[in-house]
Amino acid sequence: VVKREVVQLITPGTVMEGSMLDEKENNFLASISQLNDASYAVSYADLTTGETSAAYVGRDFHSVISELYHRPVKEIVVCEELAKEKQTEIEERLNCTVSFEGETGISREESYLIKDMPQDLVFVFGRLFHYIKRTQKRAMDHLQPVQVIELNEYMKLDMFSKKNLELTETLMKKGKKGSLLSVIDATVTAMGARLLKKWIDRPLLQEDAILNRQSIVQGFLNNFLYRDEFRDDLTSVYDLERLAGRVAFGNINAKDMIQLKASLQKIPSILSLLSHFEEPVIQTFVQRIDPLEELEQLLDAGIHEDARVSIKEGNIIKDGYSDVLDEYRNAQTNGKKWIAELEQKEKESTGIKSLKIKYNKVFGYFIEVTRANLTHVPERYERKQTLTNAERFITPELKEKETTILEAEEKSIDLEYELFLEIREQVKSYVNKLQQLAKDISELDVLQGFSFIAEKNGYEQPGFSTERIVRLKSGRHPVVEQVMQDEFVPNDIIMDQNTNIFLITGPNMSGKSTYMRQLALTSIMAQIGCFVPCDEATLPIFDQIFTRIGAADDLISGQSTFMVEMLEANHAIQHATNRSLILFDEIGRGTSTYDGMALAQSIVEYIHANIKAKTLFSTHYHELTALERELPTLKNVHVRAEEVDGKVVFLHQVKEGAADKSYGIHVAELAELPQGVIKRAQLLLDEFENNDAEDLSGQLS
Amino acid sequence: VVKREVVQLITPGTVMEGSMLDEKENNFLASISQLNDASYAVSYADLTTGETSAAYVGRDFHSVISELYHRPVKEIVVCEELAKEKQTEIEERLNCTVSFEGETGISREESYLIKDMPQDLVFVFGRLFHYIKRTQKRAMDHLQPVQVIELNEYMKLDMFSKKNLELTETLMKKGKKGSLLSVIDATVTAMGARLLKKWIDRPLLQEDAILNRQSIVQGFLNNFLYRDEFRDDLTSVYDLERLAGRVAFGNINAKDMIQLKASLQKIPSILSLLSHFEEPVIQTFVQRIDPLEELEQLLDAGIHEDARVSIKEGNIIKDGYSDVLDEYRNAQTNGKKWIAELEQKEKESTGIKSLKIKYNKVFGYFIEVTRANLTHVPERYERKQTLTNAERFITPELKEKETTILEAEEKSIDLEYELFLEIREQVKSYVNKLQQLAKDISELDVLQGFSFIAEKNGYEQPGFSTERIVRLKSGRHPVVEQVMQDEFVPNDIIMDQNTNIFLITGPNMSGKSTYMRQLALTSIMAQIGCFVPCDEATLPIFDQIFTRIGAADDLISGQSTFMVEMLEANHAIQHATNRSLILFDEIGRGTSTYDGMALAQSIVEYIHANIKAKTLFSTHYHELTALERELPTLKNVHVRAEEVDGKVVFLHQVKEGAADKSYGIHVAELAELPQGVIKRAQLLLDEFENNDAEDLSGQLS
Repeated sequence: VVKREVVQLITPGTVMEGSMLDEKENNFLASISQLNDASYAVSYADLTTGETSAAYVGRDFHSVISELYHRPVKEIVVCEELAKEKQTEIEERLNCTVSFEGETGISREESYLIKDMPQDLVFVFGRLFHYIKRTQKRAMDHLQPVQVIELNEYMKLDMFSKKNLELTETLMKKGKKGSLLSVIDATVTAMGARLLKKWIDRPLLQEDAILNRQSIVQGFLNNFLYRDEFRDDLTSVYDLERLAGRVAFGNINAKDMIQLKASLQKIPSILSLLSHFEEPVIQTFVQRIDPLEELEQLLDAGIHEDARVSIKEGNIIKDGYSDVLDEYRNAQTNGKKWIAELEQKEKESTGIKSLKIKYNKVFGYFIEVTRANLTHVPERYERKQTLTNAERFITPELKEKETTILEAEEKSIDLEYELFLEIREQVKSYVNKLQQLAKDISELDVLQGFSFIAEKNGYEQPGFSTERIVRLKSGRHPVVEQVMQDEFVPNDIIMDQNTNIFLITGPNMSGKSTYMRQLALTSIMAQIGCFVPCDEATLPIFDQIFTRIGAADDLISGQSTFMVEMLEANHAIQHATNRSLILFDEIGRGTSTYDGMALAQSIVEYIHANIKAKTLFSTHYHELTALERELPTLKNVHVRAEEVDGKVVFLHQVKEGAADKSYGIHVAELAELPQGVIKRAQLLLDEFENNDAEDLSGQLS
Repeated sequence: VVKREVVQLITPGTVMEGSMLDEKENNFLASISQLNDASYAVSYADLTTGETSAAYVGRDFHSVISELYHRPVKEIVVCEELAKEKQTEIEERLNCTVSFEGETGISREESYLIKDMPQDLVFVFGRLFHYIKRTQKRAMDHLQPVQVIELNEYMKLDMFSKKNLELTETLMKKGKKGSLLSVIDATVTAMGARLLKKWIDRPLLQEDAILNRQSIVQGFLNNFLYRDEFRDDLTSVYDLERLAGRVAFGNINAKDMIQLKASLQKIPSILSLLSHFEEPVIQTFVQRIDPLEELEQLLDAGIHEDARVSIKEGNIIKDGYSDVLDEYRNAQTNGKKWIAELEQKEKESTGIKSLKIKYNKVFGYFIEVTRANLTHVPERYERKQTLTNAERFITPELKEKETTILEAEEKSIDLEYELFLEIREQVKSYVNKLQQLAKDISELDVLQGFSFIAEKNGYEQPGFSTERIVRLKSGRHPVVEQVMQDEFVPNDIIMDQNTNIFLITGPNMSGKSTYMRQLALTSIMAQIGCFVPCDEATLPIFDQIFTRIGAADDLISGQSTFMVEMLEANHAIQHATNRSLILFDEIGRGTSTYDGMALAQSIVEYIHANIKAKTLFSTHYHELTALERELPTLKNVHVRAEEVDGKVVFLHQVKEGAADKSYGIHVAELAELPQGVIKRAQLLLDEFENNDAEDLSGQLS
C-alpha cells in the first residue's frame, strides 16, 4: 500500500487537478534567478505533465517580464532578496502569485534532472525544485529532465507586442475570444491546444524547421478527406499528456485508466490513416508512433468500463481478471439469491403474500409484515422494529447469511484495491512511451488544425526571403476578417530591399492600425508554420517584432499615456535590428502639437539612419509626408476615403502617396455634433491650412 | 407542512443564496419596456431582499443603458420584439444575461404590489413579475410594493461618466479597489455597503435632503466616541435586510434565526448609544426604531444556539421550549445511560474487563469482546460478527432498548421540525417591522461611515450655492490621495458667477485629469451627503455631470478612439444645461493636428455661447489659450512644472494663466530615448515655434 504524507500545500502553481485547471492551458510554476554575471534566468515546471524547462533571459528585468508575459504561469518563485519593486512588477504585470525559496542546490540523486544543463543555469531550476519539494512533500520523480530553451532560436516578442497584438488574449476583455489564438486554433485535443499556445509564444527563426511544419500542413491539405477522418479519431483521444503526468506521479484512478485505454484503442486507426499520406515528414511520425498494444490489453482485461473514481469502494476490476475476486463476488451474488429464495419460501410457509425482505443501513436485512397480517407471523420471527403500518422481524438464519454477504463484500473491496495498485505500477513502466506518444499526437493535432483553418479561411503557404523583402498580395487581418459583418477589404504590402519605412496617413476609423497589425500577425503565423491570410506571401524571417499601438491611461499608477508611449517607443529603438519589424502608431499623439510632431519626425529619422528595420509608421501629422523627399528608404502610403453626399465613406484601401486631407471633422459630423459646431470647425480648419501649408514644409529639411 | 413545487429555474438574476451572491451588492433582476409613447421604463427586483422599484427613463435607448450601467444587475428581462442590436448592446455594455418575457399584466390579487404606480409604468414591472413567477414557480408574496423612482430627483450620470469617473469600479481592472466607493465605504454591515452603492448611483438634487444627511454625519463627528461604540455594536448586527427577505420568502433556517436574534439583541444597546446624540435628525431614528423585543424573546426561548442549518435533522429547538420534546429527549438520554450501566453490569457478571458496548450504523448497539476473553462469554450472548481480534454479540434486552432509543430519536426529530415551522410562521408576522429596522440601520451605518472617513481622511462639510459658484479651497482627489506614496498636492478650484470655462494647459503626467476628476468626484460626494476632501468647499448642486476623458481603442467593434471621443462629446453637448458640469479632456487628440484643433475650438465656443455649463476643458493645443481674450467667461489655467538640471519636475500645482511651454520632449528624455533623437526633436521644435507663433494667434479671432 502506498503511503502518503499528510501535509501538502496546494498553491496556484502546484495545482494538479480540479476546477482550477484549464484543460487547454498549461499550468506553469516558474522561477526567476539572477546569475553570477547579474543576468537573469527563468525556469518552468508544469506538475500536471511533468515537463520542465529553463532559459537564459538577459540582463534587463523588462526582458524577464516580457518572457513570462501572457504565458500560463500561475505562480513565480523568487528569492526574498529580489527588490520589492520587482516583486510588485511581477504581481501587477503578470497577475501572478509571488512565492519565495532560498535553497537552490541539487543533490546527486536528483542530478538526472539537470544532466543537459549548463552549470550556471542549474540554480534557477534548483529554486523551483526546492519550492516544489517543500510544498508538495512527496516524491517528485514524475518530473522530466530539464529542457534548456535557447531563446535566440525564437522570434522575440516583448510584453508590449504580446499585449498590443492580442496574440493569446485580448486587450480589453482579457479573454481568448478575439485573439489570434482563437482564430487559428482548430486543434481537437486539449494537449494540441496547449502546444499551439506554446508555438504562438515562440515563433521559429530557422527556415528549415518552418518548412518542415509547412510540408505536414500541405500534406494534410492534399489529402483533406483522410485529415478529416484523423480529426474524427482525435475526438476519442483524451489528454494523454496530463494522463501520462498523473501516471508518472502515481495518482491515476480507474477513470483515468479507462480514458487511457480508449485513447490507445484509437492509435492503430490513426496510424493506418496516416500511412495514406505520402509526405516523408508524416511518414516519420508513422514510423515512430508506438501503439502500446500490451498496455491497452492490460487495461482492457483489468479495468471495469464503469469503474468509479474512488479506488477504495470496489467496482473497479473486471470479472475474470482474478479468480479469488470472482469467488468473493459469487459469494455475494449467491447470498443475495439465497435471500430472494428465502423471501419466496417464507411467503409460502406463512401464507403472507405481502411479506418482503428488505435491507437498510440501520438494521441490515429484515422481514417486513404489514399490520393486517401480523396474526400469521410464526414464533421463530424475532421482532425488531414497529412502524405505523408494519412490523419488522429477523431470523437467525437471515442474520447469518447477512454476515456472510457483508464479509465477502469487504474482502472483495480490499482485494480490488490491491489489484488496482498492481495494475497502476505496471502502467507506470510505460510512462516515457506515453509522453512521447502525447508529444507526437499533439504536434500532429496542431498541424492538422493549421491545414483545417487554411482550407476554411483561405490561407496560402508563405515563402521566405533572405533579402528582407516583404511581398504580401491581398493580405487580410486574420482576426478582424473573422468578426466583420461586411467583407474585409484586402491590401497589398510590398516593401522591396530599398524600402524600409512606410509612413501611413489617412483618416481615423479607416483601418490604419488594422493594416499595421495585419503584417505583424501574418509574420507570426508564417513563423509558426501556419499558412497566412492572403493571395500570395513572401516574407523576411523577423528576429523581433516591436509595437507601439494605442494604450489606455493608467492614472493611478501615475504613468500618463505619453510616458507609456515613450517607454514603448524607446524599448523598440534600443533593441530593434535591421531584421526586425517595428509598428509605430501615431507616435507623439499623447503630447502637445509641436513637440509631438518634432519627436515623431526625429524618431523616423533615427530609424531610417540607424536601425533600418522594416517599419510601419502611422501618423496624424500630415506635415511629415514631406519626409519622403529627404529619406530614400521611406515611402508614403495612405488609406483611401471618399466623400459621398458630404459624408465620408471609408474604403479601407491602402494606396501609394500621402493622404490629401484630414477627416476628423467628418467624423464629428457622423457623430451628429450640432451643425453650428461643425461649420465653425470647418471654417477654422480652412484658415489654418491656408496660412500654414508652405511654412511647415519648409521646416522639414 | 409547506409544500414546494419541484421545478424551479435558477437564473443569474433570481439567485437567492450561495456563493453567487456578493454580500456587499444587491442582486438585481431588471426589466425594460417601451411604453405607448415610445419612451422606455425600467423595473428592478432583488429577490434576496424583496425590494422592487420602477422608473421612467426617457426616449433615448442610451439613457436606458446609462441608467442600468454599473448597477448590480445580473439579468435583464425584455420582450422578444426588442431589436437585436439593442439586445446585443445590453449584453455587451452591461455584461448581463438577457431573458425574455412577453406577459405583462398584473392580476387583481397581486395589485397590492402596484398600488402607488402610474398605470403606464405597471407593464414594465408586470414583465419582471411574470418572469419571476414563471422561473420560480412558487409564491412570491415576499416582494414589497413597487417603489417608483423619479429619476429627475437625482443627479444624472451617463454611462461614460460612470465609467470614466470610476465611481464603483475601475476602468481597467473592473474591481472595486481604486474606485470612489472603495475610498468612502466605511460601512460596517453588508446592508450598509449595499445602500452606499445605491446612493453613489443616485446623488441628490434637493438641498434639504442633503443637509439632513450632513447633520447626521456632523452629529456622529461631534460625538465620535459614541460613534465608535456604535460601529462596534454594528459588527454584531447581521444582514437584517436579506434575513428579512428570507423571512418573507419563508426559507429562513435555524442559523438565520440565531443571526436574527443576535442582531436584535444589539438594538437596545444601539438605541441607548444613539440617545446620547443631541441632533434632532438622529433622535428621529431613536423614536422610530422598534427593538422587537418579543421576537427576540421568542427566538431566544425556542432556537438552540448551535442549531444546524438542516431543519430536518433535529438539534434545533432548545430544551424547555416544549414538554413533549423534552420527554422524547429524556427517553434518549435515559436509554444511553441504561446502556452505560448495562456495560458495567456485564463487565462484572462476565469478569471481562475489556468488554465494551459500541454502536455503529450497520449493527446498532452490540457487545464487543476481544478474542482472548471469548471463553468467558455467557450463552445468552448471540454472536453477530467476527473480526480479526474480537467478536461482536447482542442480547435481546440490548436490542429492545436500542429500538426505544432510535424511535425516540425519530419522534423528536419530527416534533422539532413541526415546532420550527411554527416559530417560522410567527417570525414571518414581523416582516414589515424587520424591513423598516434594516432600512434604518443601513442608513445610520452609511452615515456613521461618512463621519468615520471624514475624520480619517480629513474631509470638510461642503456648502451649496444657488448662484453656480464653485469655491473649492485646497481640494484633493479622494482616490489618488489614498494610493499615492508621496503627499498629494492640493489645488483650489474657484469659479465665480462670471467664470464658466477653465481652459487647462500643461505637460502630460502633470495631473490635469486628476484635477478635473477631482471636481466631479467632490461634487458627487457632496450630493450624497458625504463630506469632501478639501479645506473649504462651496459648490453648485449639479443636475448632470458629463465627461470625455481618455478611452481605449475598441478596434474590433469598429469604432476608433476618435469616433468614441466625438460620440461622448456630442452626448454632453446635446444634454448639458447651465446647471451641469462638463469635463472635456484633450478633445481632438484622436484626429490629425489641424482639424482636431479646429473642432476643439469650435466646441469650446459652442459651450461658451449656448450651454454655459461649468466646464473644465484640458487641451494640448496651446494655441487655444488665445481664446481667453475673446470669450469673457473662459479663463486659462495651467499646471506648473519646473526644470531642474535639465529634467522636468511636476509640481502638480494649478495656477492661473496659460502654460508657457510644452514638455513632451522632456518626457521622452525621462523615458531615456537616445540623445540623438532628443536633440534633433528639440531643434525641430524650436523651428516650428519660431516660425509659427504669430501666425496661429492671428487666426484665432
